Amino acid sequence: MKFKFMKNTRIKKLKVGILGATGTVGQKFIVLLQNHPWFEITVLAASKESAGQTYEKAVSGRWKQEVDIPQSVRKMPVLECDPRQFNSHERIRIAGAKGGGAQFAYCDFVFSGLDASVAGEIEKAFAMAGYGVISNTKNYRTERDVPLIVPEVNPNHASIIPFQQKRRKWSGFIVTNPNCVVVPLVMAIKPVMDKFGISKIMVTSMQAISGAGYPGVPSLDILDNVIPMIGGEEPKVEWEPLKLLGDIKKDGFKLANIKISAQCNRVPTKDGHLLT
Amino acid sequence: MKFKFMKNTRIKKLKVGILGATGTVGQKFIVLLQNHPWFEITVLAASKESAGQTYEKAVSGRWKQEVDIPQSVRKMPVLECDPRQFNSHERIRIAGAKGGGAQFAYCDFVFSGLDASVAGEIEKAFAMAGYGVISNTKNYRTERDVPLIVPEVNPNHASIIPFQQKRRKWSGFIVTNPNCVVVPLVMAIKPVMDKFGISKIMVTSMQAISGAGYPGVPSLDILDNVIPMIGGEEPKVEWEPLKLLGDIKKDGFKLANIKISAQCNRVPTKDGHLLT
Amino acid sequence: MKFKFMKNTRIKKLKVGILGATGTVGQKFIVLLQNHPWFEITVLAASKESAGQTYEKAVSGRWKQEVDIPQSVRKMPVLECDPRQFNSHERIRIAGAKGGGAQFAYCDFVFSGLDASVAGEIEKAFAMAGYGVISNTKNYRTERDVPLIVPEVNPNHASIIPFQQKRRKWSGFIVTNPNCVVVPLVMAIKPVMDKFGISKIMVTSMQAISGAGYPGVPSLDILDNVIPMIGGEEPKVEWEPLKLLGDIKKDGFKLANIKISAQCNRVPTKDGHLLT
Amino acid sequence: MKFKFMKNTRIKKLKVGILGATGTVGQKFIVLLQNHPWFEITVLAASKESAGQTYEKAVSGRWKQEVDIPQSVRKMPVLECDPRQFNSHERIRIAGAKGGGAQFAYCDFVFSGLDASVAGEIEKAFAMAGYGVISNTKNYRTERDVPLIVPEVNPNHASIIPFQQKRRKWSGFIVTNPNCVVVPLVMAIKPVMDKFGISKIMVTSMQAISGAGYPGVPSLDILDNVIPMIGGEEPKVEWEPLKLLGDIKKDGFKLANIKISAQCNRVPTKDGHLLT
Repeated sequence: MKFKFMKNTRIKKLKVGILGATGTVGQKFIVLLQNHPWFEITVLAASKESAGQTYEKAVSGRWKQEVDIPQSVRKMPVLECDPRQFNSHERIRIAGAKGGGAQFAYCDFVFSGLDASVAGEIEKAFAMAGYGVISNTKNYRTERDVPLIVPEVNPNHASIIPFQQKRRKWSGFIVTNPNCVVVPLVMAIKPVMDKFGISKIMVTSMQAISGAGYPGVPSLDILDNVIPMIGGEEPKVEWEPLKLLGDIKKDGFKLANIKISAQCNRVPTKDGHLLT
Repeated sequence: MKFKFMKNTRIKKLKVGILGATGTVGQKFIVLLQNHPWFEITVLAASKESAGQTYEKAVSGRWKQEVDIPQSVRKMPVLECDPRQFNSHERIRIAGAKGGGAQFAYCDFVFSGLDASVAGEIEKAFAMAGYGVISNTKNYRTERDVPLIVPEVNPNHASIIPFQQKRRKWSGFIVTNPNCVVVPLVMAIKPVMDKFGISKIMVTSMQAISGAGYPGVPSLDILDNVIPMIGGEEPKVEWEPLKLLGDIKKDGFKLANIKISAQCNRVPTKDGHLLT
Repeated sequence: MKFKFMKNTRIKKLKVGILGATGTVGQKFIVLLQNHPWFEITVLAASKESAGQTYEKAVSGRWKQEVDIPQSVRKMPVLECDPRQFNSHERIRIAGAKGGGAQFAYCDFVFSGLDASVAGEIEKAFAMAGYGVISNTKNYRTERDVPLIVPEVNPNHASIIPFQQKRRKWSGFIVTNPNCVVVPLVMAIKPVMDKFGISKIMVTSMQAISGAGYPGVPSLDILDNVIPMIGGEEPKVEWEPLKLLGDIKKDGFKLANIKISAQCNRVPTKDGHLLT
Repeated sequence: MKFKFMKNTRIKKLKVGILGATGTVGQKFIVLLQNHPWFEITVLAASKESAGQTYEKAVSGRWKQEVDIPQSVRKMPVLECDPRQFNSHERIRIAGAKGGGAQFAYCDFVFSGLDASVAGEIEKAFAMAGYGVISNTKNYRTERDVPLIVPEVNPNHASIIPFQQKRRKWSGFIVTNPNCVVVPLVMAIKPVMDKFGISKIMVTSMQAISGAGYPGVPSLDILDNVIPMIGGEEPKVEWEPLKLLGDIKKDGFKLANIKISAQCNRVPTKDGHLLT
């Protein structure tokens, strides 16, 4: 699979599948990919409980985005997160689904918004089956042959993929993106580091409740309050930038030589993250 | 059991047990009864998971009140909600509990802050065992021989108790208090009704998140929002005042002849309820 | 001036001036009219303090909308709210304004988002000078010859305009829109009233802070709180529907025969109003 | 004037006057001094607009504390902030004031919660007139002969007072307390500094809206938001600890040799400040 994107050029859109499509992250993928110039959602997959329904029915009562469910996915069938159900070129019959209640399932690659408790096995299965998996989940972030990429910062880290495929005997691959706090952090750090070098970072985050998913933070905990601890967040913020800003060696990534101290706080706002 | 309260008179305090002591309602009981002139908490009971620990350990990480856990209950042992464990006059040995890790369990009556899913059986067991049960839960509110009392409004409804005891063959009894919105509502209505009569009531409530318990309302639902529906709340607000403001007959309560229409809303405040 | 709007038909857009363009209401007009199929903003006017600057400079630090200042108005000059400066067909020279720092001021009619303290005189001056003034302010709402219109409810009330022009000797006219709570209220009432008749209305509102303008409600008053009173709001909600739902007579409007009781509450949400 | 405080010893309470008694800081003084074992409020003073009224009338509609106005100050007269009105030993006649509408004004020293715009002149006048002025305002904090004290951290800085009195020819004196963020900051830093030394501090604050006074932060700015800048706050947080942690020399204070970088944020909570 070879991607070549050209700005301002009409291209044939890439067909995208979404794993964990009914969750908070999956919903965000759907909203962001709506009317996207490069990508077109063609397959939605979620847990067994959701599979076999139209998307709008599967997500009913759980849609938490500011905008409505895009029209283009409402009647799409939800599959199980099993690569054998993908690219089947068979018609899937689902009551109420559009196109006479049927649709072909085909995609070029998948975005994964799966919960960490199931992402490990499922993403592996898709990579083995030949899919490129772009994962929002933490499971593979720390593997030395799996790139952790912020496109503006370390696009070159994608060059580890052949090593990953060879080592794991996968025809597909997994690429991960970092924790939400890490993205703006490394984008700010990278140019400073390139120009002046950086040895120590102290970072304080104020993070919105949306980052905790749904139902997430109980309102009794956060209304009129700031919570000065987000379980498991600080280790990610202290480690992931080291990989992102590190070097590629033959046998995997080498961490950058920076010391990071992170203080992560939850604040009573719906969306957005602030770093100081 | 006969209560006789005199204002400004030194009385021997009544010993109180609390059922569901670790939950949000139970915690509220404990805070409100702290330093109370009439009552003294002597027994705490909760689910099997909490039983056998000191109260401060059982409630650890779940204490949601503005004030600290009162010193007087921190080291008290938590029993199971089983009347056979009460009034045992035996010492209960619990690691870390005060008085050498032991304490007598005795109480004159119980306040119940149990979850509705278990309150039915447990409260019945205590009433059968001879306890007066003052319940904050909805299970028995609609029974025709169980009084639903707001002391300022219908204290005379307690006179149904002998009928209840005879009918159910209980040596104890159950008294319930109404939904949180109903309390201020009937207190405002009662004097108007007595003086002028009332035939129709339209009530709109704005209710804080504390009323939903913990974890209760997800913050993503309520931050910067008003939720114009609280499941199951409106029927209670439309029915309970009819019983409270109704008459006692030989064979139970007769509902007041009033039509009530209620609109219950959740608003993003921590505490307090507003009626219009 | 005669307006004829046809859906889905390309029409020459009407040129619109905005009075009070830098205030919260004026900003809302600008956001809502951006890319509007019928209207095009050609003149912006505000207080003397703002006049003589580009819009983006005049509104600097006071823009309170979720979206950015539309590109199309950023460099427009801000005039004083004086009809003699309008339709001058002279070029206005303002440092930094687009078109070589100059622009013709012309509009077909004006939307007024003026503060009530100044709207009376200014709107009158524009009506006398031949402008149609569509006002969001309360000053003329109660006048018997000035229509108070919600287009979906009482478009026919515009037929009072010739009477208004004759009585006041104006070549232009004033049309007002109602209080923000009244709009959804009458839209819900009108069809019920037409079908069944309505004699009494009890309305409770929960209103967002945006309705109070800027700086508006101090955060210490509303955070974690509901304010059960909005000064001056309830009389409007109780009176304006009577005019909107009333009849036109030769000598002005006759109020509908309905009794309305309103309870207006401020709730801690940014936008939106809820009625029950 | 010599203070000697002994814990757990019955002492004659010191009589306290409050300057700026009707403002947010003044209200806080009143709440905190209620039932205080050492202090007793005997004089309240505020602006000319408030003077000549009872406190409860002067503060009417502006009382912003969680608890009610203490009974003990409700009927106290409000004086002007002029030392000639203090210690007059004359009875002040105010309609509605307690004690037959009259009261002696006497205090041993004053707490000042004055606004910075007027504090400079008024506090000076009181110091000249022989009063000890304990000020919450920033005006004199940076003076080399005025101590900036957190009692747990640098009580010895009070020894500069004789130098201040001699230099300024005051029979009274001024002592200041620091910015609200600085208090917990230096309390945490001081023991670490004494034990290990400190050369650099990076501090991020999350500050509640109460710190901005009333009306303070507009709700439209802070609801569902974090404001990453508090005007004028960061310079105080970066400078005041240097004085507090510095040394006393013959001719005034010498700043500690520490570099501080502060990031101050406003968060949507009512009370409390968080440092990271």
